[in-house]
Amino acid sequence: MTNSVLQSVSYANGVLKILDQTKIPNVTEFLEITKIEDAWDAIKQLKVRGAPAIGIAAAYGLLLGIKEAPETSFEEFYPFFKYQVDYLATSRPTAVNLFWALKRMDDRAKKEKEVQVSKIKEALENEAHLIRSEDEEVCRTIGEHALKLLKDGMGILTHCNAGGIATARYGTALAPLYLAKEQGWDIKVFADETRPLLQGARLTAWELMQAGIDVTLITDNMAAMVMQKGWVQAVIVGCDRVAANGDVANKIGTYGVALLAKAHNIPFYVAAPMSTIDLETKTGTDIPIEERDAAEITDGFGKRTAPEGVKVFNPAFDVTPHEYITAIITEKGILSGKYQEELPKLFQ
Amino acid sequence: MTNSVLQSVSYANGVLKILDQTKIPNVTEFLEITKIEDAWDAIKQLKVRGAPAIGIAAAYGLLLGIKEAPETSFEEFYPFFKYQVDYLATSRPTAVNLFWALKRMDDRAKKEKEVQVSKIKEALENEAHLIRSEDEEVCRTIGEHALKLLKDGMGILTHCNAGGIATARYGTALAPLYLAKEQGWDIKVFADETRPLLQGARLTAWELMQAGIDVTLITDNMAAMVMQKGWVQAVIVGCDRVAANGDVANKIGTYGVALLAKAHNIPFYVAAPMSTIDLETKTGTDIPIEERDAAEITDGFGKRTAPEGVKVFNPAFDVTPHEYITAIITEKGILSGKYQEELPKLFQ
Repeated sequence: MTNSVLQSVSYANGVLKILDQTKIPNVTEFLEITKIEDAWDAIKQLKVRGAPAIGIAAAYGLLLGIKEAPETSFEEFYPFFKYQVDYLATSRPTAVNLFWALKRMDDRAKKEKEVQVSKIKEALENEAHLIRSEDEEVCRTIGEHALKLLKDGMGILTHCNAGGIATARYGTALAPLYLAKEQGWDIKVFADETRPLLQGARLTAWELMQAGIDVTLITDNMAAMVMQKGWVQAVIVGCDRVAANGDVANKIGTYGVALLAKAHNIPFYVAAPMSTIDLETKTGTDIPIEERDAAEITDGFGKRTAPEGVKVFNPAFDVTPHEYITAIITEKGILSGKYQEELPKLFQ
Repeated sequence: MTNSVLQSVSYANGVLKILDQTKIPNVTEFLEITKIEDAWDAIKQLKVRGAPAIGIAAAYGLLLGIKEAPETSFEEFYPFFKYQVDYLATSRPTAVNLFWALKRMDDRAKKEKEVQVSKIKEALENEAHLIRSEDEEVCRTIGEHALKLLKDGMGILTHCNAGGIATARYGTALAPLYLAKEQGWDIKVFADETRPLLQGARLTAWELMQAGIDVTLITDNMAAMVMQKGWVQAVIVGCDRVAANGDVANKIGTYGVALLAKAHNIPFYVAAPMSTIDLETKTGTDIPIEERDAAEITDGFGKRTAPEGVKVFNPAFDVTPHEYITAIITEKGILSGKYQEELPKLFQ
C-alpha cells in the first residue's frame, strides 16, 4: 500500500529519477538522469515543479555534477563543486527552494572540509537524501495531524494541487488522503479543476487516481452544488503563505471555496508547512498578489476562447481571512482559531 | 446609441440576416439568407442559438420558404406552406421555441384563410415581425424594471450569457446593462467565464464589448475575490426555470455566485421572462438537472486536460434556493421575496 504514493524525485546508484510533470496527465514517464546538464534542463523546463520537489531535484542534480570532481584535496574539489552549484542556480532563478537546497549543500561541503574528498561526496549524498526525507517527514506529519480531523467515509473537497508530486511525497493538503487510503478508509475526493491553469484536473485528479483514491473532477463553479447535495464533509487546501493573524494566501478560488464551506457548515482546513508561515506579514492584506498574463484565461489550452482585446483580471492567488479557517495544520500540530496567539508559539 | 445593441436575427426585403454565433468571439459575421434550406441549416448548425432567437429565425425562415408558394387559393397555398413548416421543425427537434414559433405561424395562416393568399403572406410576415418585436419588448421591459435596482457607477457581476444575441435584442440579465449604457451610465461589468462551455467568455464578454460596455472577464473562481475587493454592487443572472416557491434553476455556478453575493451583502437578482416561470414545479428540488458529457470538462479547450478515465460530475444547471434571491425581475415587474404569493398573481 505504501508504494501507492508516488515519489516524483528520487536518487539511487548515481541516477536521478524524475517524474516528467509536463507530460501529466496524458503520459506517465520517469526520466532517468545521469548528467547535471539534464538535471538543469529538467528544472528549467518545469519537468519537475513544486518548491520542495525543485529543491530536492537540485540537491540530487548536484551529486551528478560532482561524480568526476577531483578527490585529491578540498582545495581542488571545492572550486569544481562550487561551479556546479552556481550552474544549477541558473536553471530557475525565481525558485527560492532551489537556492535554499543548493546553499544547504554548499554549507555541508564547507562543514566537511577537513575530511577526505571521497567522504565529502558521501556526506553530500547523505545531505541530499536528508533534504528529501525531511520534506517527506514534514508532509507525512502534516498528514497524520490532518487525519485526526477526518473520518472514514467522508467526502472531501480540495482545490488546486497541494499534492505529493510537488513535494518529496504525500504533499500537504493531499497527505491525509494518502494516509486515509493506507488505513483502508473509504473516502471520496472532489477535485476542483482550478482555472486558469487546471492544476486540479491535470495534477490532483491524476495523482489521486495513481494511488487508487476515489476522485471526482468538477469545474470550480460546481463546488457549491456538490456541497448543497451533502457530498462534502470537509474541505482541505494547501497554502502559499500564512500571515501572523492566520490569514492565508493560496491559489485563486480558495477564498470562494472557504465561503461556500461556511455557508454549508463544512469545516475548512488549511495544510501549512512551517516554511509557509510568515510572522513578518501581519495580515492577509499585506501579502502581494501576483497578477498573471491575460492569455491564461483567454487562450488557455491552445485555442482562443474569448474576444480579442477583452479586459481580463487574472490574480494568481487570493486571501482567505482567518475567520473562515476552521484549522491550520502544520507539522508541529493543529491550530484552531486563535492564530494570532498560536502561530508565534510554533517557533519557540 | 440604440444601434449599439446588436440584433442577432432580423429580416427585411426577403433577406434573413443571422449573426453566425459559431464564429464568435473570433469573427463577427452576419449570414444573409434567402432560401429556407439555408435557414434550416443555420438552426441545425447552431449558427443561431438561444431559445427566443431560434423561434424568431424559424418564423423568418418560413417566409423564405413560401416566397414561391402558389397564390391561387388557400387550398393550393396551405399544403405548400405546411410542408415548409414541417421541414423547418426537423432542424432542431429539441428546441421548444422552434415549435412554438412555427405553431404560431401556422395558426396565423389558418386564421387568415378567408383572405387572398398574397394577403396571407403579408399577414405571416407581420406575425414573424411580431414574434420578434414581442420578444424585444419583453427583454426591454425586463431591462427597464431591472434598471431601477441599479445605479450609475455600479460594478455588476453576471454569470453565463443571458444576453442579447440569444433573444430578439437586449437579452434578459444583460438588458439593464444595455439600457444603462443608453442612458450614459458608467457601469463596470464582471463576466464569469462560466465553465465548462465558457458562455461568459465567448458570448457575454463579446456582446458587451460590441456595445462599448466596460467588461472584465474573470474565471468563475475569481468572483469571490472581485466581491471581496468591493468592486461589485449587484449580481444579475438569467434563468432557465423558476419554481412556484421562487427557487431558480440556471447555469451551473449560479448557486455559488448567490452564496458569495450573500456573504458580501451584495444583492442577487434574477431576470426571468414570464415564459420561464413554471408554477407546476413546486420547488427547486423538483427541477430535473441534466448531466452532460464528461468531455466538456476533460477536453474543453481542444486539448485533453485531465487524466484518461477520470470520474467527472458535470451538471448543466444548479438550483438557487429562493432565500438567496434578492429579487426576481419579470416583464410584469419586480418580485422581492414573497415569491410563493407573488408569482401566481403575475398570471392573473
